[in-house]
Amino acid sequence: MLVNDRYGHGGDIYQNQITLDFSVSIHPLGTPEAVRAAVAAAAMQLEAYPDPYCSKLREAISESVCVKVNHLLCGNGADELIYQFVDALRPKKALLPVPSFSDYESALRSAGVLPVFFPLLREEEFMLSEAILSVIDEKTELLMLCSPNNPTGRCISRALLEKIVLRCRETKTWLFLDECFLDLADEAAAYSPIGLLEEGDRVFLLRAFTKTYGMAGLRLGYAICKNREMIDAICRTCQPWNVSTPAQLAGIEALRCKTWAQRAREIFRAEKPYLLSELQKLGFQTYPGDANFLLFSADPSLSDALLQKGILIRTCENYRGLCAGDFRIAVRTHKENEALIEAIREVTHA
Amino acid sequence: MLVNDRYGHGGDIYQNQITLDFSVSIHPLGTPEAVRAAVAAAAMQLEAYPDPYCSKLREAISESVCVKVNHLLCGNGADELIYQFVDALRPKKALLPVPSFSDYESALRSAGVLPVFFPLLREEEFMLSEAILSVIDEKTELLMLCSPNNPTGRCISRALLEKIVLRCRETKTWLFLDECFLDLADEAAAYSPIGLLEEGDRVFLLRAFTKTYGMAGLRLGYAICKNREMIDAICRTCQPWNVSTPAQLAGIEALRCKTWAQRAREIFRAEKPYLLSELQKLGFQTYPGDANFLLFSADPSLSDALLQKGILIRTCENYRGLCAGDFRIAVRTHKENEALIEAIREVTHA
Repeated sequence: MLVNDRYGHGGDIYQNQITLDFSVSIHPLGTPEAVRAAVAAAAMQLEAYPDPYCSKLREAISESVCVKVNHLLCGNGADELIYQFVDALRPKKALLPVPSFSDYESALRSAGVLPVFFPLLREEEFMLSEAILSVIDEKTELLMLCSPNNPTGRCISRALLEKIVLRCRETKTWLFLDECFLDLADEAAAYSPIGLLEEGDRVFLLRAFTKTYGMAGLRLGYAICKNREMIDAICRTCQPWNVSTPAQLAGIEALRCKTWAQRAREIFRAEKPYLLSELQKLGFQTYPGDANFLLFSADPSLSDALLQKGILIRTCENYRGLCAGDFRIAVRTHKENEALIEAIREVTHA
Repeated sequence: MLVNDRYGHGGDIYQNQITLDFSVSIHPLGTPEAVRAAVAAAAMQLEAYPDPYCSKLREAISESVCVKVNHLLCGNGADELIYQFVDALRPKKALLPVPSFSDYESALRSAGVLPVFFPLLREEEFMLSEAILSVIDEKTELLMLCSPNNPTGRCISRALLEKIVLRCRETKTWLFLDECFLDLADEAAAYSPIGLLEEGDRVFLLRAFTKTYGMAGLRLGYAICKNREMIDAICRTCQPWNVSTPAQLAGIEALRCKTWAQRAREIFRAEKPYLLSELQKLGFQTYPGDANFLLFSADPSLSDALLQKGILIRTCENYRGLCAGDFRIAVRTHKENEALIEAIREVTHA
């Protein structure tokens, strides 16, 4: 949690009066009813400690992603697993393409590691290119990637990811790959190297329930890792009961909602072109993206003006490599997206 | 969480068929109805991230314990705060009386610290004595205490705690004091040095909702610390959203249940003498304690025999300084305590 620090993420509905939150990028339909019901039912079994092994939840994930139970690690939100992984590894040299999710750098710094930044270029629309391959060397203990990347929305192509996995195997570099937004990404672009993983591989795939199942408030994420030493090391750095009973029960129910992610992607199919086109009509610079959110550039005053109308969008100036006037918005339902565009028109007098 | 490790705590109702769990020591009446209702209501607001500042919860705690909001830190269970505190401090020399809760040592080891153990003696009924004062020196960066102590149940006396606080101030030693069981301890023995704390003091008081309000499955604890540098350091080592929305809302409701702890202590007033007397009649060695649980010694086969009857008690042989045949049991309601004694009679043919 935070006490004296300034909050630097989306979703701060607590210090603002918000009617529409475009600053967090979760499923536009929110939480499935079955997940809500699981949490309500969990209210009747709070006395007991949670299962420290998350046995039933890991079995359900194991079936869902076809990975052995012992290669799965659950966390109090995917974000906890970022800190746990970095704390367990404490690499001497870490490579971090930017802009990307700020907690990678925060976790590295908290472990005393100053990462080597690899800039994703605005003029290349923030796409990760093959140039990354030549900077992964034997001294690179860790490469931290995100696909689709937050906040740029770009997926790393299958061809490049396969090369990265092979290159990291050669150089004995740990590959941390955040796939928290993958379930909601365009199917044509979305690719996970999960099928390439071999026993012992230094690859850590991060997944979340947060976005796909609208469970941000509940905290549940997991990692796929076929390296037993790393799993053991992480388990030693934390308490046994980090995943609450409501989260475990909700996760099991969420995995039964097999069409939930698909329903979101159907919404995005119409809404992303709509939002992009409207933002372009407003004269804003947009960037192509494969995720359930969009990055665009406008006048830096836009976010404050929208806040006056109770609409929160994500200012991106605290992302390394972005600046004032860069904004990230979630793709929501048509009615909500229309309301956003209408509000932007009003505040920009367009 | 755990994957390959063996679980070494109480409450493992997941790998055993249990009808009565005496291995975890929480409020005998479980969770207040208002807390359950808060969790059920939270099921309707899972989409949003939790408040990273835990603002309303910390305000409620602040009123309840008369400490400034900025001196309060919330955690995903008190256990998380043990790991966070030790990780933030990473002391060169730590002093740890034993037997005590095993996660102090686990957290120290995970931070690369091998503690100096200070044995609490069976022949002194595990009471912490003034001898501790003479081993706190300028090199002692951290002293980890628990009052009432888990699993021995002994409270540290007011007189000794006051001396310890003063001695630690002299030697610039951090005092970590786990008060998670204090709310349910005998009022005559229970004492917190909270009133002695001054701005900047190197004291970290740990508190839990788990035991007092039957919220083990939900995970909520907090720390009181008037040292701003430590609070900042801990916030840097972890994610902003470690305390879930259901836990925050439940915590606020729990603090409104002002007589809940008192109701437990009324039960203990009759039940502790009853259990002690029955255990003694059975020929077991008992130890005096001030907590909502009791330590006793019996034949090491007792726990397995009770498990056959669906009753779980806490085997204590994995506590440093205890051995096979040492057991901890929660004090529960009279009917449950009777059932335990009856079951012990049966399995011991007494």
